[in-house]
Amino acid sequence: MNDSPTRPVVETFMRTLQNRVITAFEAQEDSGTTFTRTPWQKEANAPMQGGGITATMKATGSKAVFEKVGVNFSCVHGQFAPQFAKEIPGAAESDGAFWACGVSLVAHMANPHVPGVHMNVRRIETSKGWFGGGADLTPAIPYDDDTAHFHAALAKPCHAHGPHSHARFKQWCDEYFFLPHRGEARGVGGIFFDYLEDDFDHGFALVQGVGEAFLEAFVPLVERRKHTPYTAEHKHAQNLKRGRYAEFNLLYDRGTRFGLQTGGNTEAILMSLPPTAIWE
Amino acid sequence: MNDSPTRPVVETFMRTLQNRVITAFEAQEDSGTTFTRTPWQKEANAPMQGGGITATMKATGSKAVFEKVGVNFSCVHGQFAPQFAKEIPGAAESDGAFWACGVSLVAHMANPHVPGVHMNVRRIETSKGWFGGGADLTPAIPYDDDTAHFHAALAKPCHAHGPHSHARFKQWCDEYFFLPHRGEARGVGGIFFDYLEDDFDHGFALVQGVGEAFLEAFVPLVERRKHTPYTAEHKHAQNLKRGRYAEFNLLYDRGTRFGLQTGGNTEAILMSLPPTAIWE
Repeated sequence: MNDSPTRPVVETFMRTLQNRVITAFEAQEDSGTTFTRTPWQKEANAPMQGGGITATMKATGSKAVFEKVGVNFSCVHGQFAPQFAKEIPGAAESDGAFWACGVSLVAHMANPHVPGVHMNVRRIETSKGWFGGGADLTPAIPYDDDTAHFHAALAKPCHAHGPHSHARFKQWCDEYFFLPHRGEARGVGGIFFDYLEDDFDHGFALVQGVGEAFLEAFVPLVERRKHTPYTAEHKHAQNLKRGRYAEFNLLYDRGTRFGLQTGGNTEAILMSLPPTAIWE
Repeated sequence: MNDSPTRPVVETFMRTLQNRVITAFEAQEDSGTTFTRTPWQKEANAPMQGGGITATMKATGSKAVFEKVGVNFSCVHGQFAPQFAKEIPGAAESDGAFWACGVSLVAHMANPHVPGVHMNVRRIETSKGWFGGGADLTPAIPYDDDTAHFHAALAKPCHAHGPHSHARFKQWCDEYFFLPHRGEARGVGGIFFDYLEDDFDHGFALVQGVGEAFLEAFVPLVERRKHTPYTAEHKHAQNLKRGRYAEFNLLYDRGTRFGLQTGGNTEAILMSLPPTAIWE
């Protein structure tokens, strides 16, 4: 499984994407703080092999832009447990063997006028292979023009993928990032897709396009809002929104729950949690 | 189901317990803040009937003792969904009919030297009937003598219940309030019990004893620590502990997850979440 012919090109893309995001975010960070990269590797006898690089930046002080951001790259392979393999396309036919490679990113911003953001792209192969991922925005103080810019930028790679792809991936995102117990969306959406059993090149082009579009979609919002003055009330609204974000990730997010229940890297999985939160 | 002969005496006990706790907590609150009681009632055609009283107090300012505390009483009856009824003792034989009555309490304290606390007592009847509940302590800054006092006070009603009851309920508590993904306990424990199919009088005596012992176990700790000076580092430690508390309640707590998934009262269910939290 690990010697899949597609793995080298995917891994190179993912490593490059992680570094491009890090560079772009550091260029926006006014406090002088930079990312800390921490490589990790599964133990030799673990059921899962491989490793990755977690990269985090936590800026403090009046010039801070990124209060807490994590950009994780990982590339792992191994054997799904039989019970779990049943739920994964093509895993029964591969005797549970799989490899997976991706980049996952969550940014919680110091200035409550700058929206929080999440992005993920991944390739998974069993006896089948597919791409998944997406990007979505969580403003504490929504601005219609920010939301419109974000959606328009992410629509581009979707349009190149197919005429209905953007509408489909946008709706998928709205359905996934929803808190039923609150009757409210986590944020203002974006795109989400999974199990795209395209031919490799078509799917890979989408994921490469999303990686590209993500920076175009998000970085201008940081630039536009990071110096906007804010009040204690704005920060309070952001902390309330962060409480909802924590609720979603702990109650519903499939990646978080699966990761924790299968003995994944707790610190890397829970990196998505906000730096602070308030419940009223 | 709702005309069970045991219901009036249980309901009276639970209502009285809620009021006793409120009175004892208000006597400790130095800011002058008092509880707000909010009665609620299920709609006439809801699958569950009945109602309750949520009581919350949120003190602010330098004299605040209880930063956020909720003491909820509820008494409901109705019909479990067939799928869920299978998991509940005696519910298949009652065609899903049940009634339930209890008090549930979570206190998050302003001073990080005062431990957070949780207490719950409940009676549930289907074709069977049982008591459940317990109380447990979550200090941010643990003091051995506080922990010892808490355990000793809660041991009393357990000893009256049976020679091995305290050891059993204490271990049950440690097993239940554990975060496997962190490899750590939520707090320093207490007691937890469920499905106690004693004869009614024996079980009721335990639950009455726990209600009594809870105030003896906790109020002296509030009195002892609420004026201890604390630093920003102490408050930071408390907020980190509160992050773990939110993780437990959202990822694992059966009551929280069941309540949200079955359309319970979201605000009442999530009242247990801390007022603030930090993740590093």
